[in-house]
Amino acid sequence: MKQYMEQAIQLAKSADGQTGVNPLVGAVLVKDGRIVGMGAHLKAGEPHAEVHAIRMAGAAAYGATLYVTLEPCSHHGKTPPCADLIVESGIKRVVIAMKDPNPLVAGNGIMRLQAAGVEVDVGLLEAEARALNPAFLRSLETKRPYVILKTATSLDGKVALETGESQWVTSSEARRDVHELRATVDAILTGIGTVLADDPSLTVRLDRVTRQPKRVVLDRDLRLPFASTLARTAEDVPVLLFTSSDEAERRERAKAAGIELFDYTSLGTVLETLYANGIGRVLIEAGPTLVTSLLDGGYVDEWVAYQSPRVFGGKHGVYRSQQEGTIDGISRFTIHQVETIGPDLKVVLRKGAL
Amino acid sequence: MKQYMEQAIQLAKSADGQTGVNPLVGAVLVKDGRIVGMGAHLKAGEPHAEVHAIRMAGAAAYGATLYVTLEPCSHHGKTPPCADLIVESGIKRVVIAMKDPNPLVAGNGIMRLQAAGVEVDVGLLEAEARALNPAFLRSLETKRPYVILKTATSLDGKVALETGESQWVTSSEARRDVHELRATVDAILTGIGTVLADDPSLTVRLDRVTRQPKRVVLDRDLRLPFASTLARTAEDVPVLLFTSSDEAERRERAKAAGIELFDYTSLGTVLETLYANGIGRVLIEAGPTLVTSLLDGGYVDEWVAYQSPRVFGGKHGVYRSQQEGTIDGISRFTIHQVETIGPDLKVVLRKGAL
Repeated sequence: MKQYMEQAIQLAKSADGQTGVNPLVGAVLVKDGRIVGMGAHLKAGEPHAEVHAIRMAGAAAYGATLYVTLEPCSHHGKTPPCADLIVESGIKRVVIAMKDPNPLVAGNGIMRLQAAGVEVDVGLLEAEARALNPAFLRSLETKRPYVILKTATSLDGKVALETGESQWVTSSEARRDVHELRATVDAILTGIGTVLADDPSLTVRLDRVTRQPKRVVLDRDLRLPFASTLARTAEDVPVLLFTSSDEAERRERAKAAGIELFDYTSLGTVLETLYANGIGRVLIEAGPTLVTSLLDGGYVDEWVAYQSPRVFGGKHGVYRSQQEGTIDGISRFTIHQVETIGPDLKVVLRKGAL
Repeated sequence: MKQYMEQAIQLAKSADGQTGVNPLVGAVLVKDGRIVGMGAHLKAGEPHAEVHAIRMAGAAAYGATLYVTLEPCSHHGKTPPCADLIVESGIKRVVIAMKDPNPLVAGNGIMRLQAAGVEVDVGLLEAEARALNPAFLRSLETKRPYVILKTATSLDGKVALETGESQWVTSSEARRDVHELRATVDAILTGIGTVLADDPSLTVRLDRVTRQPKRVVLDRDLRLPFASTLARTAEDVPVLLFTSSDEAERRERAKAAGIELFDYTSLGTVLETLYANGIGRVLIEAGPTLVTSLLDGGYVDEWVAYQSPRVFGGKHGVYRSQQEGTIDGISRFTIHQVETIGPDLKVVLRKGAL
């Protein structure tokens, strides 16, 4: 029954932005045409969607059908295997939207269910279920967070006037939208140049949001001013600083301020370190130098490009490199979504051609 | 009755792109709750919408109500005044969406109708009727055509790779859309640089279209090659060339090829000359130099910006000037429409802030 899987997908979406490296998963438990349990995975380390649904159903789970957006796990992670709980609860049939691509599961959950005599169907609304978790699916392959690049430019791709003025390229409506975007990630990454120029706080300023993403600064020479907003608030909202500086005194002062230090060797290793530290989605808010490196390195999974309907001209382009070769040969993005935000344009692009 | 005016507006739209400097106008004639006549203004010099509707109704016009999107004319232009015909036909009531801002009419049509005892109402769906004719309304003030700028760039505002390669920045779908755009204008204007680089034909290549816009070239030094596609086809589709060259031999050869020559003094006078020659809407398809001059001169009424979802980098920006002052002070456009065309983005902007 498609409607139950649709509901499971909706449940999964309700936890968008709060599951970190874990995927969004929803589950609906149905018996005799009636929903007896529902659940979503809400936070890494907390129970999976199936567990919530089965707990809600209690004894009614016996003989019921479970609709779940992702294959139930079969391994002991932070929680016991869901496949075992399903079998124990007496559920007679499980409808799964998509197999779990995680090599620790990858069909083992299905096998375990079938071995215990549970009827299993796979593939209902699979495309919709996959679309729930682009970050999760890609990160499983790359061991890097899903990287979202945010830029704010004029219509001709400039981040500032020739004079250097860059406040504000886009409207207050667009800037508010950025806070909505920040609320969906585990970390916000910027370069030391942006910190020195703008002294940003990189927090989510929305009334309803209490969970703050971590702040990540790429700062090769450890130039972060200890009087900066980031340094002064590192005790409240974590600051992760990547540096290759070995100045012992500055390193000690940074640590004393509550800043976590990591070795900065390359963009790739920065991203791998973030992923290993539980960051599944990272938003990049940085200047053209870092933007260019990320684009050239092919690290950008999603690009949220805000454009003001003006032309700036001048030299402050958002992308500083020069593409080589032919136009056909240039890697490109696919336009995923386009809308206007106040007077501005918002274009969401995803990696790869159509 | 709003529905009749809506129908009149739809009728007006059906002639989009073929009325030149004249506005789109539609008319519906209603008697005893039944439509007895309909019409649209189809081409400059041909009958107005009211005339078609009244002819269609014949004797049934007597005692009928006329819904018309623009105030009926009261002056002898290329056709006799519609207000007189309305009175003669015995129409008892006229519902007008908007007054004609043309100083030759501007309320005189309404006065003439009222003086003859015809009941007149003004303002039904006025905003919708005004939106039919942005070009007409603006041109009446400026004595210049409605100027539509078309650009095709990468997402970072570049028209070519650093190598100069610029074929094709956007997709075949976007290029087809440009032909649809060309089909709505009276002329396509380009610079000699583009002619020398690309040898374009600047024609509408759509099966259903037979009417071709005129081609306009800005060519200060009369460098147009006589072997160019434009020169070779000037007998079939008019070519208007603006030049300040006084090289008699080249001027004679150009004329012999069927090219009309005009004096090139400034962009403003070029546009005025085009308007005086019956061109109500002009599409600019040109390189960054001319694009920059048009934007800096404030001549662009509408900007159709196609963007390919790639970054080019390098120096070939679509806009070459440097905006002075502050971001708030920069003139800007309003985003009118956004859509994807194949893999590309199409943004339609109109002059002025929201």
